[in-house]
Amino acid sequence: MRLFAELGLRVVQLTYNTANMAGSGCFESHDGGLTDFGRELIAEMNAAGILIDLSHVGAKTTTDTIAASHKPVTFSHCLPLGLKVHPRNKSDSQLKAMADSGGFIGVTAFPPFLRKGNEATVDDIIEAVDYIIDIAGEDSVGIGTDFTQGHGPDFFEYINRDKGHFRALTEFPKIVMPRGFARIEDMPNLTAAFERHGWPEAKIEKVIGLNWLVALGRAWG
Amino acid sequence: MRLFAELGLRVVQLTYNTANMAGSGCFESHDGGLTDFGRELIAEMNAAGILIDLSHVGAKTTTDTIAASHKPVTFSHCLPLGLKVHPRNKSDSQLKAMADSGGFIGVTAFPPFLRKGNEATVDDIIEAVDYIIDIAGEDSVGIGTDFTQGHGPDFFEYINRDKGHFRALTEFPKIVMPRGFARIEDMPNLTAAFERHGWPEAKIEKVIGLNWLVALGRAWG
Repeated sequence: MRLFAELGLRVVQLTYNTANMAGSGCFESHDGGLTDFGRELIAEMNAAGILIDLSHVGAKTTTDTIAASHKPVTFSHCLPLGLKVHPRNKSDSQLKAMADSGGFIGVTAFPPFLRKGNEATVDDIIEAVDYIIDIAGEDSVGIGTDFTQGHGPDFFEYINRDKGHFRALTEFPKIVMPRGFARIEDMPNLTAAFERHGWPEAKIEKVIGLNWLVALGRAWG
Repeated sequence: MRLFAELGLRVVQLTYNTANMAGSGCFESHDGGLTDFGRELIAEMNAAGILIDLSHVGAKTTTDTIAASHKPVTFSHCLPLGLKVHPRNKSDSQLKAMADSGGFIGVTAFPPFLRKGNEATVDDIIEAVDYIIDIAGEDSVGIGTDFTQGHGPDFFEYINRDKGHFRALTEFPKIVMPRGFARIEDMPNLTAAFERHGWPEAKIEKVIGLNWLVALGRAWG
């Protein structure tokens, strides 16, 4: 972990969808929780100033990690289970536990996790941000787009298999990104949508970037 | 797994003391059970004719594996929890589940797991074999010495750390092998001890080797 930090690693998923030596992922049929090696790893990541990302981590391993980590952790890109039931989405209690522990929540625009799926627009991102702010407060929430521009089918084949090579985890659906929020250059559309929804400027500033800066400063400081 | 089988691998531990991607080891503070990848691995090992060894596996992962495997599995080298409480020893119900599923149990001579520890003699091996046969029957039990002749301190340092490199798992004790059963050339002493205990010849033959041959034939056939 110290070597990875020296090489520039500053944020890392603890698990990616399935089980690894540290714990379980959100697509495992049974989440066995954090392992003893995972605890050792967390202590090393805390010491090295690497932010622990629980976006693709299972619910029990998430709870265990929030309890074990001496520094705040993050769901860098997620959506609420309360708007759409999906193994990758986070329950109200997980979102609350993240905020209560000083952690940060980035809201993603990935259609399979959005209530309206491929029919979603930038307004559905606002709906999800509002939902999470209701639980976590406006200081713990920002944007984590999950845009994957420039990646071809091989990339999606890889990330949809356990550890890149084994069983396929889901039927990978046809994906249509939200209208008005499909690429990194669409960020100004999100700001405009927040304004259209009557958000005050200070709240918009926090959610489009300021909260991330504070959270990263805390994790890396 | 097919490649490992081609290279000659015929028996393998599913986990070694701690958690890996397949499941938990017997020294984990929480056994999270078999992972989905572990299930995939078991199916491949069954197909490739690789015998799955649960000697160093945690209790829940053991139960899950016995249920998931289409071929008998083994505790190739273990001792009963009923004679000495130790994380590495197997409970009566685990021993029974192993035998009931057609699996095989090898009895080890490693002193830290024996009731009398460094004071043990060949007669304490007989006591352990008797104990396990009472539960598993005389057709499912044999010897799995765990002799590690020719290995120096580096080897023991390596096997006592999580995945060979991380935290130390136990205070590694001073080890005095059982008097009369300390090295592979002592095998005839075991036969003599069985005779001294009045075992019939057919039972001795089964326990000193025949049962292993049957079990391996079943696993590899």
